[in-house]
Amino acid sequence: MLAVLERWLHPILIVIAIIAVVYALVNFGTVKRILIGRPMRTRELHAQHNKLLWFIALPILSADLYSSVAYGPEAGMTELAHLGAPAKWLILPITAATVMLLVLLIASYIMGVMAYPNGGGAYAIAKDNFRRPWAALTAASALLVDYVLTVAVSVSAGIQAVSSAYPAIAPYETTLSILCILVILLVNLRGVAESATVFAWPTILFMISMAVLIFAGFVDEVRHGFTRPATPPLGTWPQGLTTLLILKAFSSACSALTGIETISNAVPVFREPHQKNAIKAYIALGAITGATLLGFAFHLYIRGISVDPNNTMLSQLAGLYFGHGAVYQVIIWSTFIVLILAANSTFTGFPQLAALVAGDGFLPRALTVRGDRLGYSNGMIVLAALASLLIEVFHAETNALIPLYAIGVFLSFTVAQIGLVRRWWKVREGFWRVKLAVNAAGAAITASVAMVFAVTKFTDGAWIVLVVLPLLIGVSLAVHRHYLEIGDELRIDPTTMRPQTHAVVSIVLVSGVHRVVLHTLSFAQSIHSNVIALYIGFDDPSIEQMKARWEAWGSPCKLYTVKSEYRSLLRPLALFIQALEQIEGRADHIHVIIPQFIPRKWWHNILHNQSALLIRLWLLRNKDVVITTVPYHLHK
Amino acid sequence: MLAVLERWLHPILIVIAIIAVVYALVNFGTVKRILIGRPMRTRELHAQHNKLLWFIALPILSADLYSSVAYGPEAGMTELAHLGAPAKWLILPITAATVMLLVLLIASYIMGVMAYPNGGGAYAIAKDNFRRPWAALTAASALLVDYVLTVAVSVSAGIQAVSSAYPAIAPYETTLSILCILVILLVNLRGVAESATVFAWPTILFMISMAVLIFAGFVDEVRHGFTRPATPPLGTWPQGLTTLLILKAFSSACSALTGIETISNAVPVFREPHQKNAIKAYIALGAITGATLLGFAFHLYIRGISVDPNNTMLSQLAGLYFGHGAVYQVIIWSTFIVLILAANSTFTGFPQLAALVAGDGFLPRALTVRGDRLGYSNGMIVLAALASLLIEVFHAETNALIPLYAIGVFLSFTVAQIGLVRRWWKVREGFWRVKLAVNAAGAAITASVAMVFAVTKFTDGAWIVLVVLPLLIGVSLAVHRHYLEIGDELRIDPTTMRPQTHAVVSIVLVSGVHRVVLHTLSFAQSIHSNVIALYIGFDDPSIEQMKARWEAWGSPCKLYTVKSEYRSLLRPLALFIQALEQIEGRADHIHVIIPQFIPRKWWHNILHNQSALLIRLWLLRNKDVVITTVPYHLHK
Repeated sequence: MLAVLERWLHPILIVIAIIAVVYALVNFGTVKRILIGRPMRTRELHAQHNKLLWFIALPILSADLYSSVAYGPEAGMTELAHLGAPAKWLILPITAATVMLLVLLIASYIMGVMAYPNGGGAYAIAKDNFRRPWAALTAASALLVDYVLTVAVSVSAGIQAVSSAYPAIAPYETTLSILCILVILLVNLRGVAESATVFAWPTILFMISMAVLIFAGFVDEVRHGFTRPATPPLGTWPQGLTTLLILKAFSSACSALTGIETISNAVPVFREPHQKNAIKAYIALGAITGATLLGFAFHLYIRGISVDPNNTMLSQLAGLYFGHGAVYQVIIWSTFIVLILAANSTFTGFPQLAALVAGDGFLPRALTVRGDRLGYSNGMIVLAALASLLIEVFHAETNALIPLYAIGVFLSFTVAQIGLVRRWWKVREGFWRVKLAVNAAGAAITASVAMVFAVTKFTDGAWIVLVVLPLLIGVSLAVHRHYLEIGDELRIDPTTMRPQTHAVVSIVLVSGVHRVVLHTLSFAQSIHSNVIALYIGFDDPSIEQMKARWEAWGSPCKLYTVKSEYRSLLRPLALFIQALEQIEGRADHIHVIIPQFIPRKWWHNILHNQSALLIRLWLLRNKDVVITTVPYHLHK
Repeated sequence: MLAVLERWLHPILIVIAIIAVVYALVNFGTVKRILIGRPMRTRELHAQHNKLLWFIALPILSADLYSSVAYGPEAGMTELAHLGAPAKWLILPITAATVMLLVLLIASYIMGVMAYPNGGGAYAIAKDNFRRPWAALTAASALLVDYVLTVAVSVSAGIQAVSSAYPAIAPYETTLSILCILVILLVNLRGVAESATVFAWPTILFMISMAVLIFAGFVDEVRHGFTRPATPPLGTWPQGLTTLLILKAFSSACSALTGIETISNAVPVFREPHQKNAIKAYIALGAITGATLLGFAFHLYIRGISVDPNNTMLSQLAGLYFGHGAVYQVIIWSTFIVLILAANSTFTGFPQLAALVAGDGFLPRALTVRGDRLGYSNGMIVLAALASLLIEVFHAETNALIPLYAIGVFLSFTVAQIGLVRRWWKVREGFWRVKLAVNAAGAAITASVAMVFAVTKFTDGAWIVLVVLPLLIGVSLAVHRHYLEIGDELRIDPTTMRPQTHAVVSIVLVSGVHRVVLHTLSFAQSIHSNVIALYIGFDDPSIEQMKARWEAWGSPCKLYTVKSEYRSLLRPLALFIQALEQIEGRADHIHVIIPQFIPRKWWHNILHNQSALLIRLWLLRNKDVVITTVPYHLHK
């Protein structure tokens, strides 16, 4: 019996899902109301933000960057795992290099905050400082791709943290990750105030957890000494280590730096003076993140933690210090929550950027439409779909996703910094030479890092990004061209071009003499006098019968009949219209009137011919005729 | 690099499949022409059949029954497999019982042929002899379910035969089976002459193969004696054997009897005298099938063949006699082809029966529509979809599908035989007492067999059929009631009810002043004078701007504006229509005219608002208004 259940569970779930989707499509309003909540008025959008103190804004805006601590160092060490214990000490120099890059990036971003107090993302900076659109599009595409990866990586890493504590869920990581994304999507479709103070607490909790962990590590080391039997020897050159491998490990570790741009996009959220407070937050965040990375990496080295795909390094270290009790649970769950928050924050960033780019005409305009709850719902849905696809393809393995990650960020960093360099060169005020130098150095280093990523990770997955990016840029340019062309085509001169009346022939399609035809003919004759009826029969007897019935009905209008030898309605109709266009040369518009049953229950449609729908779709695409549907609502 | 390929292969295939489906939907005509071929005229349907000699018709019509030899005995033994070698001798009595049932069934079917010379399936017999529709519907539903199972079982068994010879394909059995079904579907959508003589050859080849196999077995036994070390002892009662288990094994073995009804449905195909020739064919087919079953089972026993899920018993036996050379290959491939032919013949039976039932108003009428190539294409597609679903759910394991099988056949046998009993009782001519006795005995035995199936296989899957059957009958009755009610509702008295003109208000939805609006207004004013324009704006500035532009355009008609605070078009439009219905009480029809962009390339639609479509769908379902779409075909 259980085997039967198991066999049928999956298909039954699929069937339920299909029914749910169909129901949702048909009763869209109700389902949406339940899931998404009541629609909101446009003017509710401009309700005043509460401006935040910098040390409150800091945790709110730092989930994205700080949460990367949970997977960055581990991603670096995964690259070196096959070299065994002798390579473990490399975590120290690699982390140190990562932290140096962090400092440089924060310095460059502080320059950005100075230049664009209203929050200038890489796209805005590039748009402002490059004449041609491709620079801004490069930055935007790179960021959009990386937003998708942020969701995929953060959610996978979060689920992996939990499955380290509860190995029983390990086989379901993919499903659980996609479920998480759906929940985040729903929450965001309902609308979340991005800067709600509640979001500060999980990040603060995670920061405290990490501080406790690092402190516990030092206590442990003071009590048991700074070397252990497990501590790998320092400075030995493991066999098989190559420069390429070091660069790969470094670039993976740099995934810990993603999310650094969040504060610069949110400068207006800070209390006055915006810029000063944002800079303070940047410095504090840099210090905290740097210290965490260094301390965490140091303890990982001392205890000689190895990479274990079923148990994250963070979980291993916490287990060593605290066992698997309450403290361990707090660390695991705060890691999970902060990673989910990082994914969540992306559900604000991606749709906003997409709407910005779409507003400039480079992406489909549907991305600029605000949903019922005022969020850019289409962008959110696209983000959730793409991230779910990535998770499905990569089976929610964080370390398989990392190689795709970070290229985009560093590429957009580079574009933004070059933009700032151009700006300082143009502006030449204040300490412009210093700023220019910082950004030039930043540009050089981020460009090299992006290059290193692209080369070293090419075969591991980076090629995907390098294929997708130019594609995305090309599509954006094509979209823009299309919109410009359409705009030209639709423009009219209102003083000279006015509506004019033309001769119209209205063809009513009739299938017999019954109530629906009666209803349709009544309408047709009410609006227009030049009405003819067309009957398409499949054989001679049915045509003769129709003619007789029409006459018995007193011939309400002229009836044409056509025999369809192929039992298709479209071909004879098309030929009839063509003939009409030629014979009745004076008809500028041909107008086809189609009666349509509307059954009382939507699923009754399966019992009725859908030819009205098919004819309409086909005519609309293939003929320049006006189509009217006259519904007849069945009562039974 | 290979790992990357493997990771992406599946998703890339899915993407290609999606693109193919979208392309096919959009360019349906072309794709259909390539796959299905040119449409055929209705009159081509009645081209004369070539009437067949009985010994030519025999192999053509016997693929379904005879091919079951390939899985019937094996299905029986699978039930006893866990009892080990001591149970192997039971194949002899079980096969003997199966053959006795075969003889009885053939006798009853000969009675059926006598009564219904034009080919009477169980549905026709039941319809003719029961006043209430449920008896005929029981027969029809049972047969439809079993047709689906025939396809699933035959195709799975065919693929299993091939994978016995080529174990490398074993992991792909499900995919290959579904692929086979798709190919059969395509071939049938193109249209195959059911009684084409070419179909005789594979069955003849398979019959000869089986004859050679059985002959080789006897030669082998004459040379090496009728007992071997492997021959299981005869008549020992294996531990764990129960009556229930014997009944289960017997009912599984009876799956070898499915397809017996084919000849009785095809009596008119035979040369004159139809009935006599059909009866000859029935007797010959019974003799051949019975002999094959007995001989095959006997050799299986002598060589002590065990059930092996990776190697069919037929393949094992052929391997023992002939090695894996040419003869073995001929046996395997002729088995495969004849099983595929059995599935193929179902693609004629299922759609014809479904069309018959639908023609009586018990199933959706779409099933009676002939496709381009004159076959009932909708029925074929439904059959292929259901069979593929079953194969997917049961991972193409023949032995997992067998418990669902055969109940339906025996149930419909029972209904048909009771029907014939009623008929003989009514008619009372000729040897009616003998005929009545044969059919009464047949009814009793097939009823008991069906009951045994239902009880013994209940937990193995038979419950599915026992749930589906009443559901199907209930749905059929509901469908019938729906059609009757609709017919009543639509009927009018042509002498008194004539079209009448009413007052109509036409609302043109405008989104600005541009070429599409110009085009739409021109049409609206051409057909009708009572035209008003409606603009739905999301904020006050846009509404003011629209008013100004309308005035600058010389106000072609009265413009109403509505502000949508929720950025939705549907709600304000619905409210406006409601207000109009109340204010302009004299308007019997409200007529909404919607301008619609038609881009040059279908995929450009993604760049444009689909609100025209949404509005139309929503209005059609929820409001009693007439909807006109005025297409504007973009040139760019």
